[in-house]
Amino acid sequence: MAQKGDLMTARSDIRVLDATIRDGGLVNNFMFTDDFINALYRTNVKAGIDVMEFGYKASKELFDVNKFGKWKFCDEESIRSIVGDNNSDMKISVMADVGRCDYKKDIIDRKDSVIDIIRVATYVHQMPAAIEMIEDAKNKGYTVTCNIMAISNAKEADIDQALEMVGKSGADGIYIVDSYGALYPEQIRAVADKYLEVADKYGMFIGMHAHNNQQLAFANTIEAAARGVSYLDATMMSMGRGAGNCAMELLLNFLKNPKYNVFPVLKFLEEHMLPLKESGAVWGYDIPYLLTGRLNQHPSAAIDFTKEKRTDYAAFYTDLLDK
Amino acid sequence: MAQKGDLMTARSDIRVLDATIRDGGLVNNFMFTDDFINALYRTNVKAGIDVMEFGYKASKELFDVNKFGKWKFCDEESIRSIVGDNNSDMKISVMADVGRCDYKKDIIDRKDSVIDIIRVATYVHQMPAAIEMIEDAKNKGYTVTCNIMAISNAKEADIDQALEMVGKSGADGIYIVDSYGALYPEQIRAVADKYLEVADKYGMFIGMHAHNNQQLAFANTIEAAARGVSYLDATMMSMGRGAGNCAMELLLNFLKNPKYNVFPVLKFLEEHMLPLKESGAVWGYDIPYLLTGRLNQHPSAAIDFTKEKRTDYAAFYTDLLDK
Repeated sequence: MAQKGDLMTARSDIRVLDATIRDGGLVNNFMFTDDFINALYRTNVKAGIDVMEFGYKASKELFDVNKFGKWKFCDEESIRSIVGDNNSDMKISVMADVGRCDYKKDIIDRKDSVIDIIRVATYVHQMPAAIEMIEDAKNKGYTVTCNIMAISNAKEADIDQALEMVGKSGADGIYIVDSYGALYPEQIRAVADKYLEVADKYGMFIGMHAHNNQQLAFANTIEAAARGVSYLDATMMSMGRGAGNCAMELLLNFLKNPKYNVFPVLKFLEEHMLPLKESGAVWGYDIPYLLTGRLNQHPSAAIDFTKEKRTDYAAFYTDLLDK
Repeated sequence: MAQKGDLMTARSDIRVLDATIRDGGLVNNFMFTDDFINALYRTNVKAGIDVMEFGYKASKELFDVNKFGKWKFCDEESIRSIVGDNNSDMKISVMADVGRCDYKKDIIDRKDSVIDIIRVATYVHQMPAAIEMIEDAKNKGYTVTCNIMAISNAKEADIDQALEMVGKSGADGIYIVDSYGALYPEQIRAVADKYLEVADKYGMFIGMHAHNNQQLAFANTIEAAARGVSYLDATMMSMGRGAGNCAMELLLNFLKNPKYNVFPVLKFLEEHMLPLKESGAVWGYDIPYLLTGRLNQHPSAAIDFTKEKRTDYAAFYTDLLDK
C-alpha cells in the first residue's frame, strides 16, 4: 500500500483516543481521584481529543469492587457524575475484556447510556467469545471495535482468520495491539497493511495501541498512521501498564490538524500527572521492560522487578532467558 | 532505494560506535572518574562494540583545562592510560569540532597515536574549514568522518552541496546528525537515501547520530540502518546532551550479529550508569526536550529549564513559541 497523508497536511480520518484511565488504571488499580478524572475530561475536550476511554466494564462477580477504583467497572452513574450528558464533540469509550465482563447485564442499550464506543479486548484464541460480545454491543447500538491483544505472540494464520471473523461480525474497527511492546516499525508497517486490507474489504477502520518497552510506542503509532491506520491510542505522560503507551504530548505535537491543542495537555501534565508520579505510581520506559519486550514476553516479571526496586539487570535478563 | 537487510539476518557492514563519553560528557563537563572510563572500555570490548569515542580534541587555548574533565581534550597519554596500545578489535575515535580544535598541533600522526578515527563535527555553514580539517586528518593517516550537525535547520540545497564537498574531500564517511531531535522516521529515511546516494558515488559509508527529544532516537537509528546506513551511534542508558541519544541497550538488543553481547552492557548500566544518575547527572527524554525538538530548536532552553527544576511546561512552551 502507498503512504497515506504526509508531514505537511492533516488527515481528516485521524481519531485520537485518550486511554489514560484505562491503561493507566492498570498501574494504580484505577484509584484515581474524582478531581483527576474531572480535570482529565475537561482537558481532553479542550485539547480536541476525539475519544476518551473511561476504563473497563469489569465483572463485579469476578473482581472485588472494594479492591479497585470505580473505573475498573465504569458504572453509568460514575461516568455521568463526571460528564453529565457529555455535551461535547468528544466520544466516550469503555473496554470490555472477553471472559471478564458480564456484558449482557452490564452493557445497557446505547440510547440509555452516555457511552458511545465499546472496545472488545480479546486474545486471538478467544475469538468466538469476542464475536458474541461484538454482536451484543452492535445490537445495543454502539460503535464497536475489536482489540486483538498480544499479536506479537500469535500465529499469522490465526490472526488472518481472526481478522476475517471480525470483518464479518459487523464491528466498526479493529485495533493493532502490541501488548508486549515487542514490535519494530518495520513489522508494524506490515501488520498495518494486512489489517488495512481487511478494513477496506469490510468497510472498517483500523486503530493502533502501542506499548513503550523499546521506546517505540510513538514511532510505531505514527508509522501505523502513515500506512492508513486512523484511530490512535495515547495516554497522558504515556501512563499505562509497565513501560506505558504512546505519550499524548508526543502525538498531539506531531498531528497537524488545527483542532488539536497541546497546551491544555501540558497544563494537565504539570498539574495532575507529576503529582500522580510523585505519589508513587510507577510506569514508563525502563531497562526491565526493554528486556521483556525484546523477548516478546508479558511485562509482569518486569513489573515485579521494578516494584521490588531491583536493579540487577543482567541477572534479571538471565532469568528471563530461562523462562 | 530498497531496504537493506531484514529482521532475521545480520549485516556485516554495521558498526556500532559508543559515544557515551563524548556526548555524555556534555552533561557533566566530562568529569568522569578513571574507574568509570576503564570499566566502559572493558565493557565495550566485551560487548563487541566496533568503535569507542573517547571525547573531543578541544582547543586548550579556547577551553580552560581546569573547568573540564580530560576527555574534552583527549590527550594521547590520557587515552593510553586506559587502553595501553588498545590490543583489541575495537577502534578508537575522537571528535574534532570545527573552530574549536587546534588540529594542526593537537592531532598527531596516526602512526604515533592510539586513535583510529577522527570525526570532524561541523555546521553546514562551516564546510570549507571542515574540509581543511578532513584533509589534514586524512594526510596524517586516519579514518575520517564528517558529521554535519543540526541538519533539521539547514537548507536542502546547502546540505546537497556540503555532501558533494565531503565526497570530494577524501573523507571515509558522513554522518546524519539530528542534533535537535527534530526529525521523524519518515524524514530520516529520505535523508538516509540522499546521503547514501552520495556515499555510493564516492565510496563512503554513512552514519547515524540521533537525539531522543521525541523518543525517536532508537527508531530513527534502526530506520536509517534499514536504508543502508551502517555506522550507528549509541550511548549507555542514552546518556547525552539534553534528551540524550539512542540507547546502547536498545540497539544491541535489536542487532542480530552474534558478535554483539548485551550482558556486559547491562552489568555496566547497573554498576556505573545508575550511580552516575544518582550522583546528579541529568539527561534523557523529558517534556521540555520534546518541546524544543518539536520546534526544531537547540535544547539549551530545555536544559536550563530542567536545571532550574521547573515543571511549568505550558509556560515554557509559550516562551519557546515567542523565540
